[in-house]
Amino acid sequence: MQKTARLSLAHERIKPYIHRTPVMTNAFINDLCGAEVFFKAENFQKIGAFKARGGLNAALSLGPEEITKGICTHSSGNHAQAVAYAAKMLGIKAYIVMPKTATRVKVDAVHGYGAEVIFCEPNQKAREETVLQVQQRTGAVFIHPYNNLKVIEGQATCAKELIESRSDLDAIFAPVGGGGLLSGTCLSAAYFGKDINVYAGEPEEVNDAFLSLQKGEIVPATGKISIADGLMTSLGNLTFPIIREQVSGIFTVTEAEIRQSTRFIWERMKIIIEPSSAVPLAALLKTRELFKGKKVGIIITGGNVDFNHIEW
Amino acid sequence: MQKTARLSLAHERIKPYIHRTPVMTNAFINDLCGAEVFFKAENFQKIGAFKARGGLNAALSLGPEEITKGICTHSSGNHAQAVAYAAKMLGIKAYIVMPKTATRVKVDAVHGYGAEVIFCEPNQKAREETVLQVQQRTGAVFIHPYNNLKVIEGQATCAKELIESRSDLDAIFAPVGGGGLLSGTCLSAAYFGKDINVYAGEPEEVNDAFLSLQKGEIVPATGKISIADGLMTSLGNLTFPIIREQVSGIFTVTEAEIRQSTRFIWERMKIIIEPSSAVPLAALLKTRELFKGKKVGIIITGGNVDFNHIEW
Repeated sequence: MQKTARLSLAHERIKPYIHRTPVMTNAFINDLCGAEVFFKAENFQKIGAFKARGGLNAALSLGPEEITKGICTHSSGNHAQAVAYAAKMLGIKAYIVMPKTATRVKVDAVHGYGAEVIFCEPNQKAREETVLQVQQRTGAVFIHPYNNLKVIEGQATCAKELIESRSDLDAIFAPVGGGGLLSGTCLSAAYFGKDINVYAGEPEEVNDAFLSLQKGEIVPATGKISIADGLMTSLGNLTFPIIREQVSGIFTVTEAEIRQSTRFIWERMKIIIEPSSAVPLAALLKTRELFKGKKVGIIITGGNVDFNHIEW
Repeated sequence: MQKTARLSLAHERIKPYIHRTPVMTNAFINDLCGAEVFFKAENFQKIGAFKARGGLNAALSLGPEEITKGICTHSSGNHAQAVAYAAKMLGIKAYIVMPKTATRVKVDAVHGYGAEVIFCEPNQKAREETVLQVQQRTGAVFIHPYNNLKVIEGQATCAKELIESRSDLDAIFAPVGGGGLLSGTCLSAAYFGKDINVYAGEPEEVNDAFLSLQKGEIVPATGKISIADGLMTSLGNLTFPIIREQVSGIFTVTEAEIRQSTRFIWERMKIIIEPSSAVPLAALLKTRELFKGKKVGIIITGGNVDFNHIEW
């Protein structure tokens, strides 16, 4: 099948279950950047994040006989909700392996979609072993958070919509963690855009994607942490080749810069976003001299913030 | 002039300077209320609040010879920005009397529109005396925050847009402070709606509008405070008669209920709102048995939150 047709098909497949999120602008931020900035607001997406797209596309692409025993994944973040939500839409079971340190609000959200939560120790090895046990016990199909072509194609529909709304973009900025969104954004920019360059923002503290691009091979994340907690994973062998070939640059930003951009978006745009979502704006602000007068798309990835830490 | 024509004219007058803000829905909140709730999101309005409408309509209604010496007001809140913004749009001077206790972010916002800020002691008497001095010194025209027919008609355009988007509403909830928005909402519901009942939410701590309705005359606010800091003013002699005649009910809510509804909107709708904006939802939640299965509009009044108090 032609590649563009695959993405269009993915989009049609998930459309009944997702929102077409708005593209927002803000005069203050335009002034600050010296560019016209168009924010694709996936904080308003189902489950509060773009990950609904990838989870749905992967689940809906499975044959009826494959999914009778359900689907499973490991995630402490939005992909957990995405798989739980997709299973609910399909009327099948979902098994979500979560670190026992996951916040209650995230566990509650997964339970809210009717999924079974299996707790494990908070490390990558325990997650992978536990999900393997779950697969063996239940026969559920594993949906990887990003290193899965159907997930990548699902995430690609986000930039596809952005480009449909603004066909004149010069650049799109996305954050990079495991690279599912970034590689999907590259695919849509290449297939549906006219000369759109794709850039990534990454926390300086977890700059493994930046280093991977420099070295020409996957450099794993070191386990350091960032306030942008959705971006602490390593690239995968499916996402890295797309990113290496098609991304025009990865810009790293400090924790202070991420906090500042989060605040700009909350205060000026009046929308709730996760700190991970502010990383692309922080990267654009840092490199604004390169984008003077340009039209720049930014993907706001999600708005799932734990408000238990705020004094109300 | 016919009353409906006056409101339509006000709308046309201010349209070039305002956003048509979105009407938002949320599945979680619908379930919670047992009703279909439509939020008119004026947090996305120019200056971050509906008050832009009233300030603009009042300023734009003045004749060219009246405004040569500028406009003035006293306000510690969104009306200050509204008058400053209107003056900027008209290319005239604005003088804003603010209590010296006003937060820096609010003073900065007013300065940002090029207005002159005159500080006074933080009480009603000082405000009124200072604004009188400003008028005498400068010849600027005073625009009252709510007790001004042009301001009321400007605020009315908010419910007019909501009704244009959803002609099938059974009820609209607005908060009540000085009553500019509430009386304007009553006018639009009466002129443009089909059997829409208008209700107000008010903080229990500053329940002067509730008491005024009970007593049949204006009961002044006692000076008690609420987290809903936009709602601490008394009704005016122009707003009260409209409210007395046309409002179907005022429901009071506790500080805890306001906090809870603020959190619901931040967490579930992913938008930043001021606590004053959460009062109508809190009132609907408290009275939800009366609105089962109904279509209810809620005016989200603004999103100007002082983030200096949050640890980033």
